[in-house]
Amino acid sequence: MRTYLDWNATTPLRAEVKAAIIEGLEISGNPSSVHTEGRAAKMALERAREQLAVALGADGADVVFTAGATEAAAMVLGQGGFHCAPVEHSAVKVWCEADLAVDGDGIVTVTDPARTSLQLANNETGVMQDLPQGLHSSDLTQAFGKVPMAFNWLGVTAGFVSAHKLGGPKGIGALILRKGTDLPPLIKGGGQEQGRRAGTENLIGILAFAAAATAAQRDLDAGLWDEVAARRDALEAQLCDIAPGAVIVGKAARRLPNTTCLLTSGWKGETQVMQMDLAGFAISAGSACSSGKVRASGALQAMGFDDQLAQSAIRISISPAVGGDQINRFADAWKKAYSRWRDRNGPIAAI
Amino acid sequence: MRTYLDWNATTPLRAEVKAAIIEGLEISGNPSSVHTEGRAAKMALERAREQLAVALGADGADVVFTAGATEAAAMVLGQGGFHCAPVEHSAVKVWCEADLAVDGDGIVTVTDPARTSLQLANNETGVMQDLPQGLHSSDLTQAFGKVPMAFNWLGVTAGFVSAHKLGGPKGIGALILRKGTDLPPLIKGGGQEQGRRAGTENLIGILAFAAAATAAQRDLDAGLWDEVAARRDALEAQLCDIAPGAVIVGKAARRLPNTTCLLTSGWKGETQVMQMDLAGFAISAGSACSSGKVRASGALQAMGFDDQLAQSAIRISISPAVGGDQINRFADAWKKAYSRWRDRNGPIAAI
Repeated sequence: MRTYLDWNATTPLRAEVKAAIIEGLEISGNPSSVHTEGRAAKMALERAREQLAVALGADGADVVFTAGATEAAAMVLGQGGFHCAPVEHSAVKVWCEADLAVDGDGIVTVTDPARTSLQLANNETGVMQDLPQGLHSSDLTQAFGKVPMAFNWLGVTAGFVSAHKLGGPKGIGALILRKGTDLPPLIKGGGQEQGRRAGTENLIGILAFAAAATAAQRDLDAGLWDEVAARRDALEAQLCDIAPGAVIVGKAARRLPNTTCLLTSGWKGETQVMQMDLAGFAISAGSACSSGKVRASGALQAMGFDDQLAQSAIRISISPAVGGDQINRFADAWKKAYSRWRDRNGPIAAI
Repeated sequence: MRTYLDWNATTPLRAEVKAAIIEGLEISGNPSSVHTEGRAAKMALERAREQLAVALGADGADVVFTAGATEAAAMVLGQGGFHCAPVEHSAVKVWCEADLAVDGDGIVTVTDPARTSLQLANNETGVMQDLPQGLHSSDLTQAFGKVPMAFNWLGVTAGFVSAHKLGGPKGIGALILRKGTDLPPLIKGGGQEQGRRAGTENLIGILAFAAAATAAQRDLDAGLWDEVAARRDALEAQLCDIAPGAVIVGKAARRLPNTTCLLTSGWKGETQVMQMDLAGFAISAGSACSSGKVRASGALQAMGFDDQLAQSAIRISISPAVGGDQINRFADAWKKAYSRWRDRNGPIAAI
C-alpha cells in the first residue's frame, strides 16, 4: 500500500477526469472539419474552453490550449526581454534574466512589473507572491486549484496553467491572455486556436482539463483545501518535534495549503526520498523536473540557504485525498529514518 | 447511421487505443520523479517510445514526442532556410520557401535535397513522392500506417508523424531524428526528451500513440490496406461512370490506397461536402485545417488546375473500417446530388 505525497510533481487523475476521458474517446471528428463529426468535436472543444475560463475566473480572456504550462511560458517569454527571480520554475527561468531579489522567506521584489514574470506560488516551497500591479505574466501552475484565484483579478497580461497539477492528465495546459493580446505563434501551420497555436487540438486532454478545473474549483469552494492546510500544519509540527533543528522553508510567508519544504542540514534530501520510497511514501527533493540531477535547488540557494541546507531539502505535498492517518504514518516512518541518521551524525544543527 | 469517409482529416480511436488509454488512466507518477510512481511512469514512457520506433522502422533513431506533426515540423523547419513544394501541408509550408516545381500528377522535383522538406504522401490527393537521396526531412503523417514504410530506409534526417491519422488520439505526435542529430529545442525548461522538448510528457497520449502504431502496422502486414485500395478503385470507377467529365487527381501517380481527390469543374466542393453531410456521409473539400476557408487548394493550383477545378475538389478518404456497402451507398447518394446539379448546369466539361 503506497502513499503518494508528491502532488506538486503531478496528481493522479480525478474520477471526474477519467469519466470525461472515457466520454471523449467516442468523439471522432476533427474540430477543423465542417461536417457533422467535425462540428460536434468543435462544440465539445469550445465548451471545454468556456468551462476552463469559468474555473479560472478568466471569463472574456483568451484561453489558448497548449501542451502544458511550459509551452505557454515559451510562447510568451520566448520573445525575450523579461526578468524573473531565481525561484521560478525552469520553464520560466530559461527565457528570462533571473536577476530579481528574493528574501529568506522566498518573497520576490519586482522592479519593472511590465517586463517581469512572477509565479503566484512556488512549486518547491509553496511560497506565494503578492503579484504587483501591472505585472506582465505569472506561472499559475501550482496555485490553480489549490487556492482561490481569478485570472481577471490578478491584473496580469498572461498566465500559464497545467492540467496535471489539479487532477487532470499530463501534456495539456493553457496560456491565458488578457483579451486581444497580440502574440506571435511559436507553432504555426493549420491556424488552430485563432492562429495562435497550430496543430490539431488535443481534444481528449482538453475535455479532461476542463473537467479537472471544474472539480478542483468545487473542492476549493467546499473548503477541502482548508482541511489540507490543517493537516499540513499538523505534519510540520510533528516533523519539527522529531527533529528540533529542522527548518520549514517559507514558514513566515503565505504559502500553498499543501506544501512543506523541510531542511535538515547535512541529511541529504535524495537519501530521504529513497528511504521514504522504500517505506512506501512518494515525496521529492525539489521539483520533479530537476529530479535525478545532483545539484542543490537554485530556488533555495536564492533564498540564502547554503549548499548543505539546500541539498537536504525534501518536499512533501499533499491534497484532499491524503488523510490524517497517512500523514501520521509518514511522520512515523520519517522519524525512524531520522533516528538512524541522528544516531550516526548527531542532531541537526539549528540555524 | 453516419458513414465517416474523412480518415485523412482524423480517425476514430482504435479499440486497442481505447484500451491503452484506459490502462494509462491508472499511471499516476511523473516520469521525471525518482520514486516508485515516477519510475513506473518513466518505464511506461520509454516502452512506448521503443514500441513506436519499431512500428516506424526507426530502431536506433531518436523519437521525440511532440503535440503533433505540426510541432515536429516547427522544431526542425523553424530554423529556416528550407525549400518545399506548394503541395506540402501548411505546417511545413509556413516555414519554407515553397518554390519547388510540381507536375500535373502532383510529383515534386527536388533540386537541393539537403535543404528540402518533402512529404511522403499528400493529405489532399494521396499522391506519394519518391524521396530523393539526402533529403533533409519528410512529413510522414499521411503515409504512416497506410503504406509500408521504414524511417531508417528513407534516408532522411527528420520525419514528422501524428497519432490521430492512424487511430490514435489528437494532440500527440513525434519528431523522428536520425540518431544524434543536433537540434535546438523550441520549448525549453525541465529538460524532458533529452533536453529537446521540455514539459511533462503527455503520457496517456504517448501510450495511445504506441498502441495505435503497433495496431496499424499489424493491419498493414495483414494486407488490410490492399483491400482498401481495391475498394477505393471501385469507388473511383463508380464516380467516373456517374460523371464522365470528373477528374481523379493524381490517378497516374503512385497514391495512398485510401484517398480519392475528385474534381467536377463548376460544382463547388464545399457544396458537395454539405450535401453529403446531410445525406449522412462525412467527406471534405481539401484538408481539415483549411476547412471553412473560402479559397481553392494551393496544392491543386500548384498542380495546374484552374480555380474552378480546384474549388470543385472533394476528398474521400477511407480505411479498413469502411466496407464495400458503405462505399456503394456513398456512390448512390453522390449520384443523386450530382444528377440534381447536372439537371441545372449540364454535364461536367471534360478537361
